[in-house]
Amino acid sequence: MPDKMTELIEELVLANRILAHEGVLDAFGHVSARHPADPNRYLLSRSRSPLLIEPDDILEYTLDSEPVRPLKVSLYSERVIHGCIYQARPDVMAVVHHHAPAVMPFAIAGKPIVPVFHLGAAGGEDMPFWDQHDEFGDTNLLVVKPEEGRSLARALAGHSAVLMNRHGATVAGGSLKELVSRAIFMCQNAEYQLRALALGTPQPLYPGEVKLAGTLSLLPNVVTRTWEYWSMRLEAAGGMPPRRSSAKAARRPMPKSSRVTPRERRKGRRR
Amino acid sequence: MPDKMTELIEELVLANRILAHEGVLDAFGHVSARHPADPNRYLLSRSRSPLLIEPDDILEYTLDSEPVRPLKVSLYSERVIHGCIYQARPDVMAVVHHHAPAVMPFAIAGKPIVPVFHLGAAGGEDMPFWDQHDEFGDTNLLVVKPEEGRSLARALAGHSAVLMNRHGATVAGGSLKELVSRAIFMCQNAEYQLRALALGTPQPLYPGEVKLAGTLSLLPNVVTRTWEYWSMRLEAAGGMPPRRSSAKAARRPMPKSSRVTPRERRKGRRR
Amino acid sequence: MPDKMTELIEELVLANRILAHEGVLDAFGHVSARHPADPNRYLLSRSRSPLLIEPDDILEYTLDSEPVRPLKVSLYSERVIHGCIYQARPDVMAVVHHHAPAVMPFAIAGKPIVPVFHLGAAGGEDMPFWDQHDEFGDTNLLVVKPEEGRSLARALAGHSAVLMNRHGATVAGGSLKELVSRAIFMCQNAEYQLRALALGTPQPLYPGEVKLAGTLSLLPNVVTRTWEYWSMRLEAAGGMPPRRSSAKAARRPMPKSSRVTPRERRKGRRR
Amino acid sequence: MPDKMTELIEELVLANRILAHEGVLDAFGHVSARHPADPNRYLLSRSRSPLLIEPDDILEYTLDSEPVRPLKVSLYSERVIHGCIYQARPDVMAVVHHHAPAVMPFAIAGKPIVPVFHLGAAGGEDMPFWDQHDEFGDTNLLVVKPEEGRSLARALAGHSAVLMNRHGATVAGGSLKELVSRAIFMCQNAEYQLRALALGTPQPLYPGEVKLAGTLSLLPNVVTRTWEYWSMRLEAAGGMPPRRSSAKAARRPMPKSSRVTPRERRKGRRR
Repeated sequence: MPDKMTELIEELVLANRILAHEGVLDAFGHVSARHPADPNRYLLSRSRSPLLIEPDDILEYTLDSEPVRPLKVSLYSERVIHGCIYQARPDVMAVVHHHAPAVMPFAIAGKPIVPVFHLGAAGGEDMPFWDQHDEFGDTNLLVVKPEEGRSLARALAGHSAVLMNRHGATVAGGSLKELVSRAIFMCQNAEYQLRALALGTPQPLYPGEVKLAGTLSLLPNVVTRTWEYWSMRLEAAGGMPPRRSSAKAARRPMPKSSRVTPRERRKGRRR
Repeated sequence: MPDKMTELIEELVLANRILAHEGVLDAFGHVSARHPADPNRYLLSRSRSPLLIEPDDILEYTLDSEPVRPLKVSLYSERVIHGCIYQARPDVMAVVHHHAPAVMPFAIAGKPIVPVFHLGAAGGEDMPFWDQHDEFGDTNLLVVKPEEGRSLARALAGHSAVLMNRHGATVAGGSLKELVSRAIFMCQNAEYQLRALALGTPQPLYPGEVKLAGTLSLLPNVVTRTWEYWSMRLEAAGGMPPRRSSAKAARRPMPKSSRVTPRERRKGRRR
Repeated sequence: MPDKMTELIEELVLANRILAHEGVLDAFGHVSARHPADPNRYLLSRSRSPLLIEPDDILEYTLDSEPVRPLKVSLYSERVIHGCIYQARPDVMAVVHHHAPAVMPFAIAGKPIVPVFHLGAAGGEDMPFWDQHDEFGDTNLLVVKPEEGRSLARALAGHSAVLMNRHGATVAGGSLKELVSRAIFMCQNAEYQLRALALGTPQPLYPGEVKLAGTLSLLPNVVTRTWEYWSMRLEAAGGMPPRRSSAKAARRPMPKSSRVTPRERRKGRRR
Repeated sequence: MPDKMTELIEELVLANRILAHEGVLDAFGHVSARHPADPNRYLLSRSRSPLLIEPDDILEYTLDSEPVRPLKVSLYSERVIHGCIYQARPDVMAVVHHHAPAVMPFAIAGKPIVPVFHLGAAGGEDMPFWDQHDEFGDTNLLVVKPEEGRSLARALAGHSAVLMNRHGATVAGGSLKELVSRAIFMCQNAEYQLRALALGTPQPLYPGEVKLAGTLSLLPNVVTRTWEYWSMRLEAAGGMPPRRSSAKAARRPMPKSSRVTPRERRKGRRR
């Protein structure tokens, strides 16, 4: 168990940093994963910008979004988003809430994102909207109360993502890697859909195409390729978390400039 | 006092560099802070691009925008913007004047920026316009005369920001950190509002939402997170000012590539 | 022969990385070259993101897109695109399939890319569309079956590029360098054409101009300039493949920051 | 004289690299300066991408665009643009021809760039168009014949810049620094003008404002600030030309990551 846990925490840290580096997250937004052994718990960082998160920042929560071990660190005020979705959706193993620039025009104009290219099918055929004002009237738009989280989870229902009016989006995945792909492809899809409007009305994928192309990002071939690519981009930008295994390595963070190939890393040629 | 002053100067230098690195400022624009002890004075750099400003560049001004100590360095010709706003608005502790690409289309088309997402509420429910030509006829559009500065301050009135036709914007804050957040979120808001137009008419926040969400950027939770994030991005890009405390450190500026975590910095692991 | 082969493999690796670094390719897309001696074979990487490809990743394929030497590595599922085009077009020596953000709006809206500036003429006077659904109904939109590849090659016919509805584009070239230029200029052309629409209806080049300007990117003057420029940009970003000739050099990848002039390289001044 | 010449060559190299780094030039485009002592000669690089130009690349030309000293290097085929403008305009001391993405939509749609913010006034109140096809019919759109260069110079007339349909733009300046500012501000102006169209019809500066704001970029205050800013950005990106004065320095190019303040450089603190 401890190894599986360590592995998941490392993957969660990487997921946070990859999504930040690829422009889905910025100072805000957060990514969680369901506990690998206990479906009634989930893992989420303390309140910190995703690009900076380290393994020690990851905390364990109950599905009521209470930290399992009391801590003095500050927590994300919107963590109920995660807990409420894990309660409502046993199939969901990872969640990200974000305000990506690519989806904001849709969240603001209240216009649906539809799959317009094969990878965009990862977001599903349609994507519901949730307007916090409908049920809760004037708020600061943060999803902080359990009833707000439950309402959002109801709007998400069985979908892969929900758009939040005047706020952002929340995306769910069957695994962390599926989630990361889905969030990135959904932003690309939104960007292309918006730009295609300058040329005419974009023709979305046929429903049958959405079904077939919707699982492309789960192909082992694709997962390996995208995860290597996003990780290497992050590493090349100096964004990898400090390594805990070697105190010496931690002391000398990898320069942004170095591009290390996996083979080099395996051979341990770099200091 | 000297410590408080040193601290504010360092924060002001950082505010200049953060706003430049986040795309609010470029070769032009300037950020000031009211003197921490004497409300009749303010601090502003000598004429220099914000990304390059160092603590030694910061000068002290009277509210008439005269330097307290005569100097041979050249000064920003538009410093009256700052002095006149500090005179008119006792609550304002920090001011930035800028030509951010995100706000320019609004300043040019004369169309209002309205809050379209929760963080955008930091700019307030509405934002006045000021057209220098209305009162002063043909000018080079720089705000250099005291009467021009006073006219701009009157247009700003009790608002958080004022758009300047065919020129840019000026933003006010209750503290330097509030100002930095407001300026950045206002640019994001403008960007999203413009892009949402391709989809339809953006629906702004409800007035009650603007009020409640308008103070989000003052939450300690949020201030900590954003300031760490923007600082680390600046540091990762090699944009931190040279440190004065250590001659040795100054001699070897931090490589752009290094990402230093706060913990590492505290432990002094880096040379 | 081995030298010519080594040279072509190095150029193919560079072509992959240049097209990734210039924004034509991302996690996906692939570039191939026809075998320098045997027109019935072509060279293409194993399944990997183009920015990361190394000489050892390049495999040899028959025109039926079967690897000449059986291997345990995973292959691009869409390699039939390459094989089928080499079969149908003896004049084609290099092929790239991509989903560049610049062309996606056109592939989505089904609107033609037309040459709107001199370098854009490299794409030819008109560019056909291919919609996989027309002939094959609901698919995941990947071109994996030989009959899909052949259908795409038929749509390409004698043109320089074909747009694939809801998917991307495929570009052909008389040489690797012509292909790289054509792909990059075609993306710039698409970008400018889209943005010009905000101002009015773009006036494409006259047919006679397309013919004359279409070969600009083949001028020795131009090839030398662009190849040096794109290579240096890639090198400055730390994106050069590891060098195999010197174990020592491979151990110490060039820092992103270093800009090495050709003269310096010739003189071997760098370690 | 030699010192003045060395200085101008260094400034010309820097102007090429700054304009490339700021997005005005890419693989193509070229910047020239009139000879400091002989008004019948001008200085221009051999055929090379502007970002890579070094002092040794700069050649001396007659106003007929013939190299003063015969050389084996290849030359820009469009150098007549420079010679013809220096012949027609004794007041012009520097010229740049470019295809900046910001101006391309205007060159393609044939719609005028008008000054929409104070710095944009550097481009002048109006900017003529030149369509090579009008006088020369079908060409590859390169300006290579003396009569094409003269025709372009006639279209430029007394203006600061001329837009070239389906090709790009050519800008003239009273000095290299004025030229660099004008070219950069003109691109910003074009970008803002295009984006403002999404909001409504942009209101250009009043004619009197254009006249007064048009010389802003000549203020010593402004020249110092912009030149320091653009140079430091270039230096931070590792884009400075190799220094010739010190063989040792040339051997160890400045890392991209280092930000050196002018003061540090003067004090020679860096190795």
